[in-house]
Amino acid sequence: LRQSEMEIRELETIFWAYRDRMIDLENDRRIRYVHIYRNQGCQAGSTIDHPYSVLMALPIIPQTLQEELDGARRHFDYKSRCVYCDIIRQEIQHKGRIIIETRHFVAFQAFAPRQPFETWILPKRHSAMFPEVEPGEIRDLAKIFKDVFSRLDAALNFPDYNYVIHTSPFGLNCSEFYHWHLEILPRVCRLGGCELGSGVYINSTPPEEAAQYLRDL
Amino acid sequence: LRQSEMEIRELETIFWAYRDRMIDLENDRRIRYVHIYRNQGCQAGSTIDHPYSVLMALPIIPQTLQEELDGARRHFDYKSRCVYCDIIRQEIQHKGRIIIETRHFVAFQAFAPRQPFETWILPKRHSAMFPEVEPGEIRDLAKIFKDVFSRLDAALNFPDYNYVIHTSPFGLNCSEFYHWHLEILPRVCRLGGCELGSGVYINSTPPEEAAQYLRDL
Repeated sequence: LRQSEMEIRELETIFWAYRDRMIDLENDRRIRYVHIYRNQGCQAGSTIDHPYSVLMALPIIPQTLQEELDGARRHFDYKSRCVYCDIIRQEIQHKGRIIIETRHFVAFQAFAPRQPFETWILPKRHSAMFPEVEPGEIRDLAKIFKDVFSRLDAALNFPDYNYVIHTSPFGLNCSEFYHWHLEILPRVCRLGGCELGSGVYINSTPPEEAAQYLRDL
Repeated sequence: LRQSEMEIRELETIFWAYRDRMIDLENDRRIRYVHIYRNQGCQAGSTIDHPYSVLMALPIIPQTLQEELDGARRHFDYKSRCVYCDIIRQEIQHKGRIIIETRHFVAFQAFAPRQPFETWILPKRHSAMFPEVEPGEIRDLAKIFKDVFSRLDAALNFPDYNYVIHTSPFGLNCSEFYHWHLEILPRVCRLGGCELGSGVYINSTPPEEAAQYLRDL
């Protein structure tokens, strides 16, 4: 089952499972970070036939998250505001990259997408840790999730994809400057020597055009 | 044509072309870095049927290279030695990850490979800039290149692959601490939410086993 084919209550159950496992793992002092993601389809690195999520309990903070934390901290030191709250405000004002907005969440095309149709979902309420998500928010997240994936499936003809939860590490006080969120990466292009060799991503689809396309579906 | 199917003199011609273009582009003051790579096969991001190399003349130093330069500089500040010269010495002494050694070059499995069979080729002579390569070295490089790719083709049944030249940026004095080299990445596994979402690479093939396999062919 793809995300778009699941019932809202099934998606809710998945998010509750993520939350409960994270809360439990926080009791294990060896764990610094819980990395949760899904690989859908073989182009997205899936190696199992049935749908599955992966939860990796890591004794380190992974590099990608550390870079995000460093950037968010620099923004906070400079502006005294959470950079993700600023992004939400600017995206809602700008409108051009927004796909859909609900009571608790906003889904938009990333400002600097690594690949065509890279989509971010952010909670409007400032919160660094995914496990702090509230029941009403989980229901809303399930709805926006199904909506976004239905649009991506229609736009890209059922693409392979990854989604990743970005959340605060354990035992690090980043509640002021960090903001949990979801990143969705449809795998419509393959990574080559440019991306893997230099860290520079080539993307020929402007996020504003992708957002317009997804909104109009 | 794959690298393994080319004549030595054809491979030489390619390396001479890389060198000549780099030397010419150094005259353009807008250019900070020349990123040269090859994508072989669609899993490696190739979008053209015939074999080709890509040369990107960039006004920035790409992130991957900047991180390498920072690490090499830290090692030099601490040890007063080039980290790549240290790697060459240790790999030759250790033997376990070496594939083949020639007069001017050494090819080995990366100590911390991102994917199975990630292979590095380093010049034994300390030199930060690829364009400083000498005629005898280019001939030797063509030979070791053909040998390495023939082994990878035999071991992995003609895999898709990327190779990338890592060299000094223009206008940056890193001649003491940097050391140009080639990185080869056979694309036998697909990147998923772990690699793309966290920067942590899962690889179930120890480099020592991969090297043994390649040596024995």
